[in-house]
Amino acid sequence: MTVWLVGAGPGDPGLITVRGLEAVRGCDVIVYDRLVAPELVDEAPADALRIGREPLRQERITDLLVEYGLAGLDVVRLKGGDPYVFGRGGEEALALAAAGVPFEVVPGVSSVSAVPAAAGIPVTHRGLASSATFASGHDPDALDYELLARTSGTVVLFMALASLPTIAERLVAHGRRPDTPAAVVAGGTTAEQQTAIAPLSEIAAAAAELSSPALVVIGDVVDLAARLVPPALAATA
Amino acid sequence: MTVWLVGAGPGDPGLITVRGLEAVRGCDVIVYDRLVAPELVDEAPADALRIGREPLRQERITDLLVEYGLAGLDVVRLKGGDPYVFGRGGEEALALAAAGVPFEVVPGVSSVSAVPAAAGIPVTHRGLASSATFASGHDPDALDYELLARTSGTVVLFMALASLPTIAERLVAHGRRPDTPAAVVAGGTTAEQQTAIAPLSEIAAAAAELSSPALVVIGDVVDLAARLVPPALAATA
Repeated sequence: MTVWLVGAGPGDPGLITVRGLEAVRGCDVIVYDRLVAPELVDEAPADALRIGREPLRQERITDLLVEYGLAGLDVVRLKGGDPYVFGRGGEEALALAAAGVPFEVVPGVSSVSAVPAAAGIPVTHRGLASSATFASGHDPDALDYELLARTSGTVVLFMALASLPTIAERLVAHGRRPDTPAAVVAGGTTAEQQTAIAPLSEIAAAAAELSSPALVVIGDVVDLAARLVPPALAATA
Repeated sequence: MTVWLVGAGPGDPGLITVRGLEAVRGCDVIVYDRLVAPELVDEAPADALRIGREPLRQERITDLLVEYGLAGLDVVRLKGGDPYVFGRGGEEALALAAAGVPFEVVPGVSSVSAVPAAAGIPVTHRGLASSATFASGHDPDALDYELLARTSGTVVLFMALASLPTIAERLVAHGRRPDTPAAVVAGGTTAEQQTAIAPLSEIAAAAAELSSPALVVIGDVVDLAARLVPPALAATA
């Protein structure tokens, strides 16, 4: 028996890993996040116990993983993206380790690079960005604006849509050029994907109609979208 | 016909995506990097043309992709990690777009999070790191040491093993605490994985016996490895 902390990838169910899909197909219990593709949950055996993460509290989820793990079941904890990129996977892993439950982390395709890619934006690119910083924009007061304003690398912000007006304004106030190319990609890699592209000073207004989940991308690489946007999107744009 | 820029993942062949494996299994031509698992190249059809990327120059590879794409073949360009994270995927995509060759990017599990995870290190973790910066250490003079020294987030460096003595020294000179936890993970996610963990000021010496490919991780999250290292590794450590 093992608890598998599995990354489901950025949205598109085809972007789970082969190992992750195997774990799902062999599990006794699957505990899944709201944003995970339903097609992936359907891959669990018909008689597997299915538990939606919401509306349970994180502490309850962690307890369940420990409980089912100690009971000798194969448990899959299916998370959006990668378990160790803003997935609270580390907290669950610590609880499992402390309880002596064997666990394995199956990494997933993170939105960090996959969601910009789906909008035609390489997160690194020779001559444009040789580094990238990703951060959570959930609490706009917790961001290091001085650092994010001065980096020459790409900035990728998770959970930043609601606070985007504040974040963009503070970045400019800290010295980031107002005309820095910026993008918001909502529902990235899914059929509902929508993208807004505008200079940093105007990106919040440009993205006002978009809804979560969304990723914010700031940096010169955003300019490549005009040439690299996937044909399917270009046709509907 | 399409050219698929496919991320093979961090090393372990089970970490390719379902979509990526499908593309490999259906291709006419596969152009693969040296670090890609041979098991994945073996998944291409028996009669597919197999082209090792090395020792060809990048320009030649790009030309080949365009040429075979224009000839109407299904071409897979199989890259380590993710095509858009230090993979030169953007350059290949631009050439394909300019030549009018349809292409698709299939993102992969990047080493950024997966390789630290395989050594028991969550790249983000509540209370320890709410951001991460990744950069190439290939040219140590190109790094922004001031930024990397001041960030409270995790620092992940690709291709930094050869220059690690210089890089670690400069980070400390720019104000990063010498006792900042640091790790080098070589051959991450493969059977050959080896990890060195030490304070930043001693990490270069501690990793002197390791060889490329290796990822450098710097930040408080490295301390979690003692509690989260996968059992298989703990047994052999």
